[in-house]
Amino acid sequence: MIQVQLPDGNTVEHDDNATALDVAKGISEGLARATAAAVIDGNTVDAMRPLKELTDLRPVPLQLLTTRDAAAAAVMRHSCAHIMARAIMRLYEGVGLAFGPVKGNTFYYDFDLATTISEDDFPKIEAEMKKIVKEGEAFERFTMNRDESIQFCEDLNQELKVEHIRTGLADHDSLSFYRQGEFVDLCRGPHIPHAGMVKAFKILSVAGSHWKGDVSNRGLQRVYGTAFFDKKELKAYLEQLEEAKKRDHRVLGNRLQLFTINPDVGQGLCLWLPKGATIRATLEDFIKQELTRRGYEPVYSPHIGRVELYETSGHFPYYRDSQFAPLFGHSAGQLVDYWIRCLDSQDEELQPPSAEDEAKLLDAALVLGFSVEDFPKNGSAEEKRAVLRKWEKQQERYLLKPMNCPHHVQMYKAIPRSYRDLPVKLAEFGTVYRHEQSGELNGLLRVRGLTQDDAHLFCTPDQVEQEFKETLGLVKYVLEAVGLEDYRVQLSTRDPNSDKYVGSEELWDNAESVLRKVLTEEGLEFVESPGDAAFYGPKTDFMVKDCLGREWQLGTVQLDYNLPNRFDLEYTGSDNKPHRPVMIHRAPFGSMERFVGVLIEHFAGAFPLWLAPEQIRVLPLSEKSDDYAKDVAARLRQNGFRVTTDLQSAKLQAKIRDAQMDLIPYMLVVGPKEAEQNAVAVRCRIDGDQGVMSFDDALQKLTEERDNQTIRQVVKSTFSAVDDSEEEANEY
Amino acid sequence: MIQVQLPDGNTVEHDDNATALDVAKGISEGLARATAAAVIDGNTVDAMRPLKELTDLRPVPLQLLTTRDAAAAAVMRHSCAHIMARAIMRLYEGVGLAFGPVKGNTFYYDFDLATTISEDDFPKIEAEMKKIVKEGEAFERFTMNRDESIQFCEDLNQELKVEHIRTGLADHDSLSFYRQGEFVDLCRGPHIPHAGMVKAFKILSVAGSHWKGDVSNRGLQRVYGTAFFDKKELKAYLEQLEEAKKRDHRVLGNRLQLFTINPDVGQGLCLWLPKGATIRATLEDFIKQELTRRGYEPVYSPHIGRVELYETSGHFPYYRDSQFAPLFGHSAGQLVDYWIRCLDSQDEELQPPSAEDEAKLLDAALVLGFSVEDFPKNGSAEEKRAVLRKWEKQQERYLLKPMNCPHHVQMYKAIPRSYRDLPVKLAEFGTVYRHEQSGELNGLLRVRGLTQDDAHLFCTPDQVEQEFKETLGLVKYVLEAVGLEDYRVQLSTRDPNSDKYVGSEELWDNAESVLRKVLTEEGLEFVESPGDAAFYGPKTDFMVKDCLGREWQLGTVQLDYNLPNRFDLEYTGSDNKPHRPVMIHRAPFGSMERFVGVLIEHFAGAFPLWLAPEQIRVLPLSEKSDDYAKDVAARLRQNGFRVTTDLQSAKLQAKIRDAQMDLIPYMLVVGPKEAEQNAVAVRCRIDGDQGVMSFDDALQKLTEERDNQTIRQVVKSTFSAVDDSEEEANEY
Repeated sequence: MIQVQLPDGNTVEHDDNATALDVAKGISEGLARATAAAVIDGNTVDAMRPLKELTDLRPVPLQLLTTRDAAAAAVMRHSCAHIMARAIMRLYEGVGLAFGPVKGNTFYYDFDLATTISEDDFPKIEAEMKKIVKEGEAFERFTMNRDESIQFCEDLNQELKVEHIRTGLADHDSLSFYRQGEFVDLCRGPHIPHAGMVKAFKILSVAGSHWKGDVSNRGLQRVYGTAFFDKKELKAYLEQLEEAKKRDHRVLGNRLQLFTINPDVGQGLCLWLPKGATIRATLEDFIKQELTRRGYEPVYSPHIGRVELYETSGHFPYYRDSQFAPLFGHSAGQLVDYWIRCLDSQDEELQPPSAEDEAKLLDAALVLGFSVEDFPKNGSAEEKRAVLRKWEKQQERYLLKPMNCPHHVQMYKAIPRSYRDLPVKLAEFGTVYRHEQSGELNGLLRVRGLTQDDAHLFCTPDQVEQEFKETLGLVKYVLEAVGLEDYRVQLSTRDPNSDKYVGSEELWDNAESVLRKVLTEEGLEFVESPGDAAFYGPKTDFMVKDCLGREWQLGTVQLDYNLPNRFDLEYTGSDNKPHRPVMIHRAPFGSMERFVGVLIEHFAGAFPLWLAPEQIRVLPLSEKSDDYAKDVAARLRQNGFRVTTDLQSAKLQAKIRDAQMDLIPYMLVVGPKEAEQNAVAVRCRIDGDQGVMSFDDALQKLTEERDNQTIRQVVKSTFSAVDDSEEEANEY
Repeated sequence: MIQVQLPDGNTVEHDDNATALDVAKGISEGLARATAAAVIDGNTVDAMRPLKELTDLRPVPLQLLTTRDAAAAAVMRHSCAHIMARAIMRLYEGVGLAFGPVKGNTFYYDFDLATTISEDDFPKIEAEMKKIVKEGEAFERFTMNRDESIQFCEDLNQELKVEHIRTGLADHDSLSFYRQGEFVDLCRGPHIPHAGMVKAFKILSVAGSHWKGDVSNRGLQRVYGTAFFDKKELKAYLEQLEEAKKRDHRVLGNRLQLFTINPDVGQGLCLWLPKGATIRATLEDFIKQELTRRGYEPVYSPHIGRVELYETSGHFPYYRDSQFAPLFGHSAGQLVDYWIRCLDSQDEELQPPSAEDEAKLLDAALVLGFSVEDFPKNGSAEEKRAVLRKWEKQQERYLLKPMNCPHHVQMYKAIPRSYRDLPVKLAEFGTVYRHEQSGELNGLLRVRGLTQDDAHLFCTPDQVEQEFKETLGLVKYVLEAVGLEDYRVQLSTRDPNSDKYVGSEELWDNAESVLRKVLTEEGLEFVESPGDAAFYGPKTDFMVKDCLGREWQLGTVQLDYNLPNRFDLEYTGSDNKPHRPVMIHRAPFGSMERFVGVLIEHFAGAFPLWLAPEQIRVLPLSEKSDDYAKDVAARLRQNGFRVTTDLQSAKLQAKIRDAQMDLIPYMLVVGPKEAEQNAVAVRCRIDGDQGVMSFDDALQKLTEERDNQTIRQVVKSTFSAVDDSEEEANEY
């Protein structure tokens, strides 16, 4: 017999070979039917395996996962990936299996397949999957040792599985497989008890991929799908996907002329067109006012810095792979470089320079300020090279700045600081450059040039708590102003078993507990993520849900005990002795690019009045009213509104349709009657006709809505059970 | 006999050998004594040479230059350079003469001399010069042919003069010399009649220089001096120099914590500290408001662009020498470069990579997106090089942007444009980077990273006149707001004899006449500078005098017929056909760095209320009044003022002295009496005590002064005859 403890504290006794399904059945048949998997001691496990194999704990601490649990959905989606693979193997010849994990609401499977699968094939595959679901066969687990496993996969002609066992799983002695009917797959599991539990699924898309994600490996076909325990949920999710597609900020950014990315300028480099720039500037001005109130001081710094600066900060060469390459101050720098190559060369294309060319090269060296008299004009190639190498080292090399910290640190250092001056808070909209891989670029959301609403706070250790609270408050203030009120905080702490962290254990304990305390006091929902802290200090990231429930990482606040040491920062304490300040890095928006990109999707391009690039459009009924329309527009402009007039000789309905399409928050319709009464007919994009009112009343109404930063938004999506967590590693 | 026509139209008759001095004497002895030189047909000439040698025109159109004429001062200064050289040759052995030209109010002479001249030697040299002036010997001109001249200079041991005749003056058959007593110098002239006309002079400084300005040539000593016809003028000028020294923006920028330039970040790269950044931001906000009123639209663009973009615009490689070198997208780019060098190398330090290293390099190549399967792993070095060279060419290379135009052009192109949309005016505070030589860097006035208050107007040819007028109006508006109301415009037109210009003659004629017309209509004083136009169009530069009378080039407006062609820009005309727009580049401030640099010197760091980084300081009489002081400060802050409080336990006089030193426009002194009455004692930095007034009255007074952008300024200098023209080429 085996003792089992349920979450409510009750203990039940079962047969020695009992499974979680048996325990469920012991409670009710209905519960057994709904049980998809189980959790024991934090691990999600098969509901159909004997409990005694799954844990040594007695009584067994068992939690059943039913079709209502999100964690059960992930298990079911992976089972659905197996079902899809099974269907495809039934339909195609010579299917090689790679991996088929779960990612949020979706799953995929990578196939090595000669035939190209297209969207047209989806109905056929879905029909085959339906059959399998209807057959409702069980998922059965079995294990083999390494040699047997390899032999088994070889017999199945599954080369990739063989390779994976040989290389990726070299340290596994025993391997598990799951069988479902004729289909068998090397798999860590867990799975749902049987295929019949998959109530609703859909194949979403197909794309190219590579074995183990490495572009130099074999090309594969990745088929994406989604599955739910409930048909309504699937429907809501598919609607949400449609809605998200409509909200794609790249499509809207183009249609609404907000921004453009032009390969002639460079991939990942955003050109903010006037309308997008207006949104960005409005957000910048908004936060600037708040920064002034909170005692921040503005600074400006250049977009490059000497490589040595980043060597001191530790950003170079540590992060070199994600940075643009260093640049020489002068093209003559490259010339010296080229010259060395010429001298080194055996290649015909790179003949050592003639005496005449050498003279020109020396002119270039002179421009760089080198002592050309040191150059042995009549010396050997070797002697010349020696001098050139010396010059090469003397040259100034710069890095396109990957972050603003080192510049702000130098500004802190430029002025002697006393404890009375602290905290010093230096703020800048600093554009930084990072060389993201081209495949990862995505509109405004992943770029190579990004403008951080950056600030660095330099404070005494005693001030950390207060200033951390201040910065959290600022992030909350910013998010609430744009209606992003659904967020949680991720607190990244250190991995206590690692020694990569700077600073004493005591320092870290103290810092982490301060962050926890402030997060709690501020009433912020937070999850801890041990081991995710930066090496220089713990950090907090705001994970913000948009109106579709999708989660985005935006604002960040980070403590830093490292840079103050590396740059030897000081302030004079009340004891008249030098002390080391603590730095706080923080960016409430994160970056202007990403924040505006998220806002475009969140608002589906229909920005609230205070942010809309074109806030009001005045529509005259006919050209008789053009002058009054211009007058109304001019008076609104004087009151700080961004206003246009539509003076085309079109019908009012057409003008209204255009304005609705352009997502203008307010239309003011004016005709002879309105002109006579100094009135306007107000039309709200969302609420429709608001009736005729005097110009002054309309102005007051609009001014209030703008100054109160009122959010009006239409959200159609009803999907709520969003789970955009990282890829589930059901695979080995 | 010779006929001479005077400027008043009268004609006089003189002896065939008559000089300008003779003509002057014919009018009055006093005029003859005051005559320093003459002008004939636009050329400044010796007053003591026979007129018949100077021109073939009859009657001779003669204008006498007297000691009241600025042009005469330049002649006298060059004569003073000879007098200084004569004095130095009397005092030192083996003096080699180089050149001694005039530059504005100063002259210098470059000497090749074994003994180092220091400031301590100035009195001795000045004393010897005084003797020479007192002796009052005449300047006498004589000529020789090339061979005689070379022999003559060799006999005088003047090597540099010999070299100059041989190389620099190779196309001169006859050369002129000027003798004054024992001193003779190769010189084009002209000179004043005799040394006695130099009434006031002073040696200013000594510095190192090089023969013909080339650092690879012989090192020389450059002695600077100044001279005037009037002792009072010299005194005023020396006072102005003292005043300018006090106003040095680098010194003030440091003392007032406005900005810092740090070699660890990079030479010529400005870090704007909070106080300087506040001034800059205030100016930016000020012009942004005006731009909105004038229909400009904001944009943002990245600080790099692909090299190809600048090849299209023509900025690369044309301006390469003044640009930072191109940079690779990824450091792996440099790695490929290094790899080629390794393969090329015979150098021990650069061994061809091992198979293991090669694998790592291939990983890097993969990151860059190269087809690594093309790489012949087992091929020869030559085969490998061939692939590497191909990769090298495929790489994205970027330029740190040297100007914003190509980015704005791409934004114009991103949206289809109709004639109804024009003019399109895209504005940005765009930071650009230029690699000025390190010797030319000067605080904020000459930098390597500069932020232009840039905008590009795209208009129809018909709109050029109106838009040019608009842009000129904007520059005037900006300059007047900061009290720089003394300026003239330089209109740079084409050289009609050159073919370097883009566009037809008709286009240029039309453009130039439009600019002339608008400048005249706007009542702007302007001088034409033929041949100084850019190759792409005529331009206007604002030459602005500061309060010391020094002239600075600030705002600029330029027409451009080139970029629209190069980038194939279009708009749809009313005829529904494509047309080419005209571009106007304009920057009213020029650059934020230079403009603020000039303002610091103009205001001697004492900014008017609306610009001052710290506008008001509240000074409590004792700590009893600290709370009221804080309350006053808080209320002022709510009204948008930048306010501090001085809560130190010092005496009021000390606090006032500190505030005066810190150049704070207003101090508000508060004690128990003021607290009781909700009042403040107002003290203006310039006008002193303004008496006690209610808080509300003080607030109103301060608000008015700020919002009216009132300028209050103390200027001590009385020097007015400033002539900061370019170097005068009295020398050959």
